[in-house]
Amino acid sequence: MSRLIRGGRVVTATDAFDADVLIEGESIAAIGTGLSADEEIDASGCLVLPGLVDNHTHLSMPFGGTWSCDDYDTGTAAAAAGGTTCIVDFIIQYVGGSLKDAREEWHGRADGAAHIDYGFHMAITDAQPNVIAEMGDCVEQGITSFKVFMAYKGALMVDDEQFLAVLEETGKTGGLVMVHCENGDAVVRYQKEAMAAGNTSPKYHAWSRPPEVEGEATGRAIRLAEWTKRPLFVVHVTCEESVNEIRAARDRGLPIFGETCIQYLYLTVDDLDRPDFEGAKYVCSPPLREEKNQAVLYQALRQGALQGISTDHCPFNFKEQKELGLGDFTKIPNGLPAIEHRLTLLYDRSVRAGHMSVVDLVRHGSWGPARIFGLDKKGALAPGFDADVVVFDPDVKHTISASTHVMNVDYDPFEGWEVQGKPRFVLSRGETVYADGKVVSEPGRGRFVKRSIFEPAVAS
Amino acid sequence: MSRLIRGGRVVTATDAFDADVLIEGESIAAIGTGLSADEEIDASGCLVLPGLVDNHTHLSMPFGGTWSCDDYDTGTAAAAAGGTTCIVDFIIQYVGGSLKDAREEWHGRADGAAHIDYGFHMAITDAQPNVIAEMGDCVEQGITSFKVFMAYKGALMVDDEQFLAVLEETGKTGGLVMVHCENGDAVVRYQKEAMAAGNTSPKYHAWSRPPEVEGEATGRAIRLAEWTKRPLFVVHVTCEESVNEIRAARDRGLPIFGETCIQYLYLTVDDLDRPDFEGAKYVCSPPLREEKNQAVLYQALRQGALQGISTDHCPFNFKEQKELGLGDFTKIPNGLPAIEHRLTLLYDRSVRAGHMSVVDLVRHGSWGPARIFGLDKKGALAPGFDADVVVFDPDVKHTISASTHVMNVDYDPFEGWEVQGKPRFVLSRGETVYADGKVVSEPGRGRFVKRSIFEPAVAS
Amino acid sequence: MSRLIRGGRVVTATDAFDADVLIEGESIAAIGTGLSADEEIDASGCLVLPGLVDNHTHLSMPFGGTWSCDDYDTGTAAAAAGGTTCIVDFIIQYVGGSLKDAREEWHGRADGAAHIDYGFHMAITDAQPNVIAEMGDCVEQGITSFKVFMAYKGALMVDDEQFLAVLEETGKTGGLVMVHCENGDAVVRYQKEAMAAGNTSPKYHAWSRPPEVEGEATGRAIRLAEWTKRPLFVVHVTCEESVNEIRAARDRGLPIFGETCIQYLYLTVDDLDRPDFEGAKYVCSPPLREEKNQAVLYQALRQGALQGISTDHCPFNFKEQKELGLGDFTKIPNGLPAIEHRLTLLYDRSVRAGHMSVVDLVRHGSWGPARIFGLDKKGALAPGFDADVVVFDPDVKHTISASTHVMNVDYDPFEGWEVQGKPRFVLSRGETVYADGKVVSEPGRGRFVKRSIFEPAVAS
Amino acid sequence: MSRLIRGGRVVTATDAFDADVLIEGESIAAIGTGLSADEEIDASGCLVLPGLVDNHTHLSMPFGGTWSCDDYDTGTAAAAAGGTTCIVDFIIQYVGGSLKDAREEWHGRADGAAHIDYGFHMAITDAQPNVIAEMGDCVEQGITSFKVFMAYKGALMVDDEQFLAVLEETGKTGGLVMVHCENGDAVVRYQKEAMAAGNTSPKYHAWSRPPEVEGEATGRAIRLAEWTKRPLFVVHVTCEESVNEIRAARDRGLPIFGETCIQYLYLTVDDLDRPDFEGAKYVCSPPLREEKNQAVLYQALRQGALQGISTDHCPFNFKEQKELGLGDFTKIPNGLPAIEHRLTLLYDRSVRAGHMSVVDLVRHGSWGPARIFGLDKKGALAPGFDADVVVFDPDVKHTISASTHVMNVDYDPFEGWEVQGKPRFVLSRGETVYADGKVVSEPGRGRFVKRSIFEPAVAS
Ligand SMILES: [Zn+2]
Ligand SMILES: [Zn+2]
Ligand SMILES: [Zn+2]
Ligand SMILES: [Zn+2]
Ligand SMILES: [Zn+2]
Ligand SMILES: [Zn+2]
Ligand SMILES: [Zn+2]
Ligand SMILES: [Zn+2]
Repeated sequence: MSRLIRGGRVVTATDAFDADVLIEGESIAAIGTGLSADEEIDASGCLVLPGLVDNHTHLSMPFGGTWSCDDYDTGTAAAAAGGTTCIVDFIIQYVGGSLKDAREEWHGRADGAAHIDYGFHMAITDAQPNVIAEMGDCVEQGITSFKVFMAYKGALMVDDEQFLAVLEETGKTGGLVMVHCENGDAVVRYQKEAMAAGNTSPKYHAWSRPPEVEGEATGRAIRLAEWTKRPLFVVHVTCEESVNEIRAARDRGLPIFGETCIQYLYLTVDDLDRPDFEGAKYVCSPPLREEKNQAVLYQALRQGALQGISTDHCPFNFKEQKELGLGDFTKIPNGLPAIEHRLTLLYDRSVRAGHMSVVDLVRHGSWGPARIFGLDKKGALAPGFDADVVVFDPDVKHTISASTHVMNVDYDPFEGWEVQGKPRFVLSRGETVYADGKVVSEPGRGRFVKRSIFEPAVAS
Repeated sequence: MSRLIRGGRVVTATDAFDADVLIEGESIAAIGTGLSADEEIDASGCLVLPGLVDNHTHLSMPFGGTWSCDDYDTGTAAAAAGGTTCIVDFIIQYVGGSLKDAREEWHGRADGAAHIDYGFHMAITDAQPNVIAEMGDCVEQGITSFKVFMAYKGALMVDDEQFLAVLEETGKTGGLVMVHCENGDAVVRYQKEAMAAGNTSPKYHAWSRPPEVEGEATGRAIRLAEWTKRPLFVVHVTCEESVNEIRAARDRGLPIFGETCIQYLYLTVDDLDRPDFEGAKYVCSPPLREEKNQAVLYQALRQGALQGISTDHCPFNFKEQKELGLGDFTKIPNGLPAIEHRLTLLYDRSVRAGHMSVVDLVRHGSWGPARIFGLDKKGALAPGFDADVVVFDPDVKHTISASTHVMNVDYDPFEGWEVQGKPRFVLSRGETVYADGKVVSEPGRGRFVKRSIFEPAVAS
Repeated sequence: MSRLIRGGRVVTATDAFDADVLIEGESIAAIGTGLSADEEIDASGCLVLPGLVDNHTHLSMPFGGTWSCDDYDTGTAAAAAGGTTCIVDFIIQYVGGSLKDAREEWHGRADGAAHIDYGFHMAITDAQPNVIAEMGDCVEQGITSFKVFMAYKGALMVDDEQFLAVLEETGKTGGLVMVHCENGDAVVRYQKEAMAAGNTSPKYHAWSRPPEVEGEATGRAIRLAEWTKRPLFVVHVTCEESVNEIRAARDRGLPIFGETCIQYLYLTVDDLDRPDFEGAKYVCSPPLREEKNQAVLYQALRQGALQGISTDHCPFNFKEQKELGLGDFTKIPNGLPAIEHRLTLLYDRSVRAGHMSVVDLVRHGSWGPARIFGLDKKGALAPGFDADVVVFDPDVKHTISASTHVMNVDYDPFEGWEVQGKPRFVLSRGETVYADGKVVSEPGRGRFVKRSIFEPAVAS
Repeated sequence: MSRLIRGGRVVTATDAFDADVLIEGESIAAIGTGLSADEEIDASGCLVLPGLVDNHTHLSMPFGGTWSCDDYDTGTAAAAAGGTTCIVDFIIQYVGGSLKDAREEWHGRADGAAHIDYGFHMAITDAQPNVIAEMGDCVEQGITSFKVFMAYKGALMVDDEQFLAVLEETGKTGGLVMVHCENGDAVVRYQKEAMAAGNTSPKYHAWSRPPEVEGEATGRAIRLAEWTKRPLFVVHVTCEESVNEIRAARDRGLPIFGETCIQYLYLTVDDLDRPDFEGAKYVCSPPLREEKNQAVLYQALRQGALQGISTDHCPFNFKEQKELGLGDFTKIPNGLPAIEHRLTLLYDRSVRAGHMSVVDLVRHGSWGPARIFGLDKKGALAPGFDADVVVFDPDVKHTISASTHVMNVDYDPFEGWEVQGKPRFVLSRGETVYADGKVVSEPGRGRFVKRSIFEPAVAS
């Protein structure tokens, strides 16, 4: 069956123009005018975008004795409702466990549950030689990126010796190393100092993880990548200190890449100081920063120092989950729900506010991540690509609220925000998964995507 | 009439994919599969690219008492033969003359002569208040960029006071300032020193214009732009010294842009030392540099510090023209013929050599310049854009030679180079202008293009 | 005859310790305890310092149709009263004139008039080949430094071609080039803009010479020095923009040196906005800056990026001289009176305020300038050096005022400042020139000092 | 009794001049001419220098199951023979042990044994809270500097959490933190890789500790100091990577200091490749570097980025000690004998070679270290200072050899070097300890020196 998205304004990562999009089966057949199909989708007054890619999500993720509260069904439904048609989620190796076991556990949770296509990164937390030896299998199975943590001392954190081992192995197997950059030693010291001083409330979470601690770790990670002659992707960059390190590395010709997340563009450290423990709703790592960093992040995206905007979606209910940290901020589960709101917020608060164009939105929210993470059929509206398409109505006004959102979490960090712009239809491989304000797909239709290897050019 | 370019691999500034290109009249109607048309063009085995844009050419340009030897007929024919479907050429104000007179003189030479579409930049050489007052007219007439020279003391060079005046005026009229960056004072001093020492041969042209002299002027130009809060485009960047200044400025969030030219990617300062005065064939300003700068330029293109690759095409015959400088290198007319070879050389020596991808070639050779210079219908293969298309056969081997080139000049700086890849067909607004090795269009079919104003975002 | 300065605390450029200073004739014979002499000078409770060196003064200097109002008698008397025992003043070549004529004119004014020893720099304003050819004579006669101006377009300013000629000549003759760094082109443009807008009051003097204009010129001057492989001394550095350039150059191993002046440490741009045209009293070039630059200058002195603190003493009476600029700030003679207050202000406002130690004061105010400017017998309290000594009482409180100062000028920029610390005795080559609040020497006792050549080490 | 050092050329940290030095008892009484005393020391033809200070030595130091083979008797005798009159040696806390126990152990070895004055630094290897609590006692007892190691993983290395604890404590107690900068994690990984590949010879010691590993640690240490607002002293800086970090920090106004050691100025990584395991004689950490770093170190000293030159004297016999690493370079005890040769080598290979002046030698080898490490009576020849004096004959030629050196070690890394310049007499607090080629003092005459606290100014 063919479908024609008619009458919209197509936006790519380089240009915007009026055209229709013809879909045959699961793929795009043509972009143009004068096309016809079995069925038409009305895109008049709408932007027609490639489905967004969210390369940083944590569904059903174990953290500090609890689990993130969106599973692969609810999480991907929320993604689809928000115009995201592909995610790459993190498998987390258990300390002492194998990569194979972790892979199977995560496949067990995701397969048959997702509404949209998904891939996996592999987070390595215990880089013993036998674990390193498993990395090649991951790459073969299309899990072509690995993540390490420089924070969470005593839990997820690897030391520099292990980090080097992971980087070096990708020189043999291929694959991109991703890194969470905070100096975990400093964080632990500052946490102890805060608690010892009786500073137990959520805002001390941010106090114990200042931007310079992120900057140092970013700079160190880049050096380890340089020593091993490997590319590197820095996740969730929040601040000037970290941007400066990435930019300096790229200026030297190093293949260093990075993303920020929407919460760092719209929220600030002041949100952690909300009364009645509500600051806990805004606890994530690295923490939200002072507002001045937002201009730095926009500039980094504009100039090319950062290449993507993801969500780091990792939801925990305020009740019972965030509340684990009452009286001890170090016990608050880290993470925010955000998977559903990326497109709308980028459009309303970034494009309409003049920080970027809608072409930039597609570049940072879809095309860039798709290319860096080897999603060869995603990120573009062009013949032969997967028919992952968002028909986005830029004029509809609505209000964000936990009472209406699709995500399975009891609060919304953007509660009450009045925004403009919303998907009218979302298609995944040609099939409508969201229409008229509702997710209309069944869980399990989404497929695991084997990703190809990204090997960036390096200065000679 | 409709035409279908069938069976090729379409390359855009972001992706490459198999698709056909449907043309209705002068415009692109669709990109896709399953399309049909009145007439078909066979692109099997070929890359299908948006026609290249050359934003830096000098046709029929007066220089040191002589004229560049390609006029708008021969020059644009050569461009078309090489896959370039739009140029932006430089009008040069005469010292003491008006912009209006210059504009009319250049229109007089170009209108009715060109094979492809063309725009104009306005070079201001004598920035008196009454001349500044004419800039608004230029912008209204679609001449939305202005150039100043920091070199050629006593001829084209403006001082910093005049440069500031030009920049400030664009804050009122809109428009992009372009700048030739060499410290003209230092050049004159070094020229005198060389001549005084009896060093009269072509290689002393390069000696008298070392890279640091370009770097200083680049840094100064950027500061003047920063002081006046204006964007700036640095033409013909050749060396690390200059790239470093542009990169540092962009890192600070300044809207500074730049290009290099193909000769700086493939030729070196050693070419000026060829025997029998043949070095004069390689005299251009800034001069060709040491080979190590080529990696720097590639890295700058890759990382985004530079956004385009043009030709600075400015041909002078070896006989009688270049020979004006026998015994005095300062009298050699400055410039190289290159307009015809850009696509083939970029493909053979840059893409095939692994320095960039074919997607990068389109970004730097077509899309980027089109956007920066306000050519809204050029630079992309998408519905509604001008049907400027190159069907490029990547496999055909041939040898560059003055005996076969289309340019009206008696030598070729790339004489004897064996290369692979050549246009099979070139279309300008839907019309074939080059096919089967021949330019098939009539002079005069090319149109003057009014360009829109480019106002880049600036860090807030 | 021998004299013993007894009971004080000797301060050198490295240490402070209790000791007596024995003088035999014009020289220091010993530093120690248990010494005796024909005559004793009581230094109890006092600091005993090497006489200060002021390497930047303008006595009887022609400027804009008038003359600075301290001559070599009054100016050096004021210097002596303030603890300065050697100055280096600027000879200014007249445009079209010879260096020899200028030298003779200045000797004519200074010889027989000065109270303390003095040397000369030669300012070159018209660097024609025959003038360049005179530079060797200057060096032979002990005038081992040359100054050029990058500002004062149409008057003192040289272009880069002339600047390069001066630098290169010192590669043959020896000698240090000094430079006044402001982009004179930009200044003229801004002056015209201000006047055209009716902004005629003194504060627009500063507006027309912003710090970035000084920074650019500083960076450019450094590059010219680098190209010619010569050392360079940047006079009157006022701001972060300029310091950054010097520091970066030194970091690359270049022999670049610089000074600031006391007015930039204590006064600010706000002083130019004083009512009743009093702002004119604070007009000098480069202008006074925003307060934040003071911390930058202190840091530069502390870290070694700057090596001296002078006065740029260039006094003009408020009546009739500064008033020349009523209604047109560009006509206000540029310069401040300061030669008398350096030691007291450095002690009270810098040492007592915690910005530097008294050892630093000696390093920046005496030893450093003495070494850089080849005053081999000045700047240290050690056997064999000239007995130029200040016995400084750090406890006496007094108030600065034009009614009491020695300088021959009708106002004092520090009028009414209550300060602590004042010379008790000042000796020049063993002879008391200031005692008990009075200058006691005769004009003419000061001698012209031939200075040696300073050739700093350069990174290999 | 009084003594007069007659007829020499006195060299200070700022100037050189002809003068005699009068000593009364243990102190300097006067510097000058025309002085007399009970006894005269002939300094004709000689330089008269303040005794050198070596702030980095390891006498009787436990390392990897063995002990450095100079004890406080032989080591300080060798120091005296080489013109060093004060050392500061490292106490090493045992993991699990107290600072008090370590202090007592080291005093037990040093007291009654030394020929010259000595102080102690305290190296903290296990920064538990109870150990941190002991730091105040150290400062009170004149042990005002603390050292941490970022290398030697599993032995001396502290993690960043412990490093921060040490820095923060000095904010309360006063005291300067010193740091050995190498990324211990990377070193261990590279050691394992080398050994796994069968690369067991001494040169792989250097391979496993490349300069970037030192640079990273230096940058990280500086950041930790910055976060805690404390000064920092980087020991044994060897390479450009490390210098760049220190310089950048100082440029930002941070009170970061550093030293290099003579071996890094004169020896290179090629020495580790000597045949017959002789490379082991040159194994120290950080390792000797490529020759190009020597120019960088000289430039850093010249420009002020580094402030001292020490020896890191830590001798191990080739037989039985260095040989522990036969077949496994990781087992070679780290360290070189150098305490005896600093003055002669600095004079012959640095001053005579044109890299520095003899004034610089005094500044880097005596005055600078004395001030930074709070040796208030050392480092200067001035009334009231300790009469620690070297009468240095710059003309005498001799050859360095283990067969003649005073150090108690069976080889000399400078074996066979022909050098010029040697102490004629060395005085410690007025007493001759070395004369006519022989150490003439008794062990035990040297005293423990309580050092004062160094609190450098910080940019405001
Ligand atoms: Zn993370
Ligand atoms: Zn995450
Ligand atoms: Zn040009
Ligand atoms: Zn050109
Ligand atoms: Zn000046
Ligand atoms: Zn001046
Ligand atoms: Zn060490
Ligand atoms: Zn050591």
